[in-house]
Amino acid sequence: MDYLLIYAHPNPKSFNHAILETLTSRFDKEKRPFQVRDLYKLNFKPSLSSEDFISFSSNTAAADIKQEQNLIEQGKTLIFIYPIWWFGMPAILKGYIDRVLSRNFAYGVNEKGPYGLLSNKKVVIINTTGGPKEHYEEGGLKDILKTTIDVGVFGFCGIKITLHKYFYAVPYIGNESRQNMLKELKAIQID
Amino acid sequence: MDYLLIYAHPNPKSFNHAILETLTSRFDKEKRPFQVRDLYKLNFKPSLSSEDFISFSSNTAAADIKQEQNLIEQGKTLIFIYPIWWFGMPAILKGYIDRVLSRNFAYGVNEKGPYGLLSNKKVVIINTTGGPKEHYEEGGLKDILKTTIDVGVFGFCGIKITLHKYFYAVPYIGNESRQNMLKELKAIQID
Repeated sequence: MDYLLIYAHPNPKSFNHAILETLTSRFDKEKRPFQVRDLYKLNFKPSLSSEDFISFSSNTAAADIKQEQNLIEQGKTLIFIYPIWWFGMPAILKGYIDRVLSRNFAYGVNEKGPYGLLSNKKVVIINTTGGPKEHYEEGGLKDILKTTIDVGVFGFCGIKITLHKYFYAVPYIGNESRQNMLKELKAIQID
Repeated sequence: MDYLLIYAHPNPKSFNHAILETLTSRFDKEKRPFQVRDLYKLNFKPSLSSEDFISFSSNTAAADIKQEQNLIEQGKTLIFIYPIWWFGMPAILKGYIDRVLSRNFAYGVNEKGPYGLLSNKKVVIINTTGGPKEHYEEGGLKDILKTTIDVGVFGFCGIKITLHKYFYAVPYIGNESRQNMLKELKAIQID
């Protein structure tokens, strides 16, 4: 599988969904095998439980976690599509990270400290925001979206981000600008 | 109500729970009225739904959101207790932020942009981490925990953080150090 798309937005009429459709149409045309994980449609359980913790140490993850881990193993490039809410991921996607990127799957720990286990993966991130670019760079926030996710999450798993694309102020820029964003995605270099 | 404690850890034997117990015992002794919201025990729903979005614009939030908003209105100081997972909040708490700190409750938007609506609140944050302090300050991560949460979430609502306390490397420092951390909490200035 060339692409595993992990998608997190509750509204099927959202611009995030248009991004998803644009990419899947492109991959269809390019005959690149892909699969979509629509976390809301899957009703993915976000809250890491005590049982999850215990199963991590015994290497026996819950069935829904195991399934996502198998898909990650199959996908060459993981593409995350989600809106920025409160300078982070929607809770349902944060829960996917908390539960699926578990110790001994996504990272290990030895006497020198933690090390990534997914360095053979590529990751692409496509974000929308409500606010303009400046809003995310004021008050010490510069590069914060890049740092928390690219370094704090995927860097920890040994993954270098291939592309992290932001579409800013999506609700306010008008339809023509949004259409241009989608046009850009049809040709953008992904891997 | 002097303190509303919002607590997010799945394990009642965790150090996070010991922090919660330490603070509630202290408030009992000091005869300060408080209430605890144990998000796991409440089985709080983390995923912001399309219905939530719609209800925000019509100012008719879901019952579980309304209940949390009422409690926030009553509490003078909000105390958040949670572990740092992947440089952020556990998904269940991220979902509390996504859903409860809604537009027109936590912030408004006018022609000049967004403005906070909760500037009469104090917020205290107590975090545990798995890694040592250095781990959270490498590779451009310096101040990242402070910035994402203090500025990106609570600053946006007009709240200045009264205290943001980190207890680092909690699983690795031994029991005596952990007991000293709890001792510190018994006397620490909160508001």
